[in-house]
Amino acid sequence: MAYFDAASAAPLHPVGRQALLAALDDGWADPARLYREGRRARLLLDAAREAAAEAVECRPDELVFTPSGTRAVHVGIEGALAGRRRVGRHLIVSAVEHSSVLHAAEVHEALGGSVTEVGVDRTGAVTPDAFAGSLLPDTALACLQSANHEVGTVQPVAEVAEACRAAGVPLLVDAAQSLGWGPVAGDWSLLTASAHKWGGPSGVGLLVVRKGVRFAPRGPLDERESGRAAGFENIPAVVAAAASLRAVRAEAAEEAARLRELTERIRTRVPALVPDVEVTGDPERRLPGIVTFSCLYVDGETVLHELDGAGFSVSSGSSCTSSTLTPSHVLRAMGVLSEGNVRVSLPPGTPAEDVERFLTVLPGVVAGVREKLGAPVPAGGVRGAERGVEESGAPAVDAPAGGTPAGTSTVVDALVVDALGRRCPIPVIELARVIGDVPVGGTVRVLADDEAARLDIPAWCEMRGQEYVGEEPADRGSAYVVRRTS
Amino acid sequence: MAYFDAASAAPLHPVGRQALLAALDDGWADPARLYREGRRARLLLDAAREAAAEAVECRPDELVFTPSGTRAVHVGIEGALAGRRRVGRHLIVSAVEHSSVLHAAEVHEALGGSVTEVGVDRTGAVTPDAFAGSLLPDTALACLQSANHEVGTVQPVAEVAEACRAAGVPLLVDAAQSLGWGPVAGDWSLLTASAHKWGGPSGVGLLVVRKGVRFAPRGPLDERESGRAAGFENIPAVVAAAASLRAVRAEAAEEAARLRELTERIRTRVPALVPDVEVTGDPERRLPGIVTFSCLYVDGETVLHELDGAGFSVSSGSSCTSSTLTPSHVLRAMGVLSEGNVRVSLPPGTPAEDVERFLTVLPGVVAGVREKLGAPVPAGGVRGAERGVEESGAPAVDAPAGGTPAGTSTVVDALVVDALGRRCPIPVIELARVIGDVPVGGTVRVLADDEAARLDIPAWCEMRGQEYVGEEPADRGSAYVVRRTS
Repeated sequence: MAYFDAASAAPLHPVGRQALLAALDDGWADPARLYREGRRARLLLDAAREAAAEAVECRPDELVFTPSGTRAVHVGIEGALAGRRRVGRHLIVSAVEHSSVLHAAEVHEALGGSVTEVGVDRTGAVTPDAFAGSLLPDTALACLQSANHEVGTVQPVAEVAEACRAAGVPLLVDAAQSLGWGPVAGDWSLLTASAHKWGGPSGVGLLVVRKGVRFAPRGPLDERESGRAAGFENIPAVVAAAASLRAVRAEAAEEAARLRELTERIRTRVPALVPDVEVTGDPERRLPGIVTFSCLYVDGETVLHELDGAGFSVSSGSSCTSSTLTPSHVLRAMGVLSEGNVRVSLPPGTPAEDVERFLTVLPGVVAGVREKLGAPVPAGGVRGAERGVEESGAPAVDAPAGGTPAGTSTVVDALVVDALGRRCPIPVIELARVIGDVPVGGTVRVLADDEAARLDIPAWCEMRGQEYVGEEPADRGSAYVVRRTS
Repeated sequence: MAYFDAASAAPLHPVGRQALLAALDDGWADPARLYREGRRARLLLDAAREAAAEAVECRPDELVFTPSGTRAVHVGIEGALAGRRRVGRHLIVSAVEHSSVLHAAEVHEALGGSVTEVGVDRTGAVTPDAFAGSLLPDTALACLQSANHEVGTVQPVAEVAEACRAAGVPLLVDAAQSLGWGPVAGDWSLLTASAHKWGGPSGVGLLVVRKGVRFAPRGPLDERESGRAAGFENIPAVVAAAASLRAVRAEAAEEAARLRELTERIRTRVPALVPDVEVTGDPERRLPGIVTFSCLYVDGETVLHELDGAGFSVSSGSSCTSSTLTPSHVLRAMGVLSEGNVRVSLPPGTPAEDVERFLTVLPGVVAGVREKLGAPVPAGGVRGAERGVEESGAPAVDAPAGGTPAGTSTVVDALVVDALGRRCPIPVIELARVIGDVPVGGTVRVLADDEAARLDIPAWCEMRGQEYVGEEPADRGSAYVVRRTS
């Protein structure tokens, strides 16, 4: 078994586990009480705060523990916005923030605030100039992650922080994915993180508010954690979180280099081993352990299922996984392919053999899924490849997804593919199947009502060197128009 | 060492500890993921939810886990109020609810809602009629604890729930103190609880919302826990919480009888062993493990400190403990003495010998504190007792509290005690010192600016059989007027 989803959660670090066990004995009492059990709990809490602050490079009295990273983000954004209510109600977020940030932004907007989403390039990074350009006189707060959780791209936090500082706007950095690797550089104002991402236990987040930053926490509060995180302190977990952070930091430099080399193997070898793959994210400015790629003509859920069967736990930003019906907002903002998306995020300590085994298993898994879906068999030129499949005779009605089988009809000036009611990756597969029938210079219209088509049809065109003409409204769903250029 | 503060927090039950350790191995992954670690985590979460629901006597899909009992209360109240926004914005709470309920009520009031605080009798219980009488056509929600956390009095929840049901108003029951002992009877609509009160770990609360209750959670949310508790699930802690609850319930009937007998020893013997003591709370309708009493002429912080030195960890609702400057709102609502307040809350398994040792140690501790403070030595009648002390010559300037020594002066028609700047229990001690100088039928005015005086001077009158005439405004603080009746 190889667990390759550290960006979701990492198992508890052995040092954290030991600390947790010790603190279960010594840290269960109320730290606000004056008797010995309370004093002992208080000492543990204070020591954990000091250790965490040292790792963040902030003052202990700037840091509070929250019940989760999500809660840290929610409280941090609400409190910073409320603290600068007089300045204005404009909030800036990048388009690829964690959903907790985007949820807080939605609430802010629903309450009458304004939100600017700063776009990213194809690697997933914001540009400091674009970010700075969105700063307005009434901007109360800006939010930028330290690194992206889906593709691993590291954001230019220090440059953005400088621009924010110059404009007098506080910057909140969601450091959930990077804090285990090192402190966040730059002159940020607020920082959030989540312990279970660095090998700490569930149930612990960090919220850091620099001295001098206006902050007015919302909602019912109590006297705990400086009035910023109501409820009984979870001291055993907090102690374990701080101990784990210290432990992973001690190993960080060495482990980062090792994991970076392992993810580099995946980045370079997957495109060679698996045809029609797009590796996403910045190849240089990236986290050590995360690599993400998408495979044409494959549905994410089946790939995940097959990889799970082969002993690999990975996640996917495809729309056809789990309960979600829309592709990942991160891949959408980047404008890259979402179908057959696979995120590999290696936990520290991942043996090289596991990665090698993954590279051995993956090509067969993808080929198997493609075969089941009746996807075009890749070969040389587009015409040859797509024709080859049609000649193999795999009929559209064999496709396992629900709905009516896709139909093809020729109208006066364009071929139409009806993929209404068909889930990804069927619309793209149908497009690939007919492109050979389109004369060079002619167009094909794909009718589809699966959200992923909006992202994946243009991405397919980009990968295939065909021209994406645009989207047109249709009676049901949309018509995506593609011109054959070669 | 004897830890007698289970109402604040109980150490983790051995069964909970074992469950926690197992779930650290099997329950750290994201339960929303489809790979095996995720599925394993999901199974544990589902099983914990079923076990907790069984203990609450609700459906599993009515119960979500929150990061604390406090959070459960905050989310529960906000969500229920928002769900019935169209009905109105009136909220009912009892005056002796946990601070988390009162904080949520404050926020509701600050946002333009209205709040009725239903008073309690001297035992700390609401009367169902009074509670029902506060129901209005625009009442959106009513809140009543199952039992009080400071004095152990059990509330008439079933009767109040019936009245609420008849009025079509949902009742939220904070069951933090009682859920370990059994399910809450009656037709309530929402229920909250906190695992570390029943021997579960920190970091777990329960929020139950009965099917059919209108509920609209506020603030940024995610898809976890039915959209009612955002943030990564803390599955190891949740599993430990459910296992602990099951374990304490298995022992509950036997242990309740045993602890009830032990607290009964304290209830009956403390007044015999320590003079000038008021035992508070309902003698019959009460939790098994909690007993609370207050001692005249004693400051709570010193008593706690001395008891801690003698090996007993207890808490106090006195104003002179820890950081608080006001006496417990519970004791205030009950109208009972707050000075020298001691809450003993026995954890399951407390040996009888510990209670016996406490009863042996307590009289000396209280006497020692009284002596240091120059308090009147109790004897027969009031006059004798109070005169006795004056004759012993302990001067007011010996009192260890800060501020200027209290001065006594006789004006035309009344004696005046100046206790301005003096902290509790000094104003009451000074009153007791001079009462012997007041002619029967005459009055004495105590000038005091310590909040506790407002509660403790009337309470002293009640205990001493003197007449409390009332409070008058003064240049600083207030003048409390007492008439000597015997």
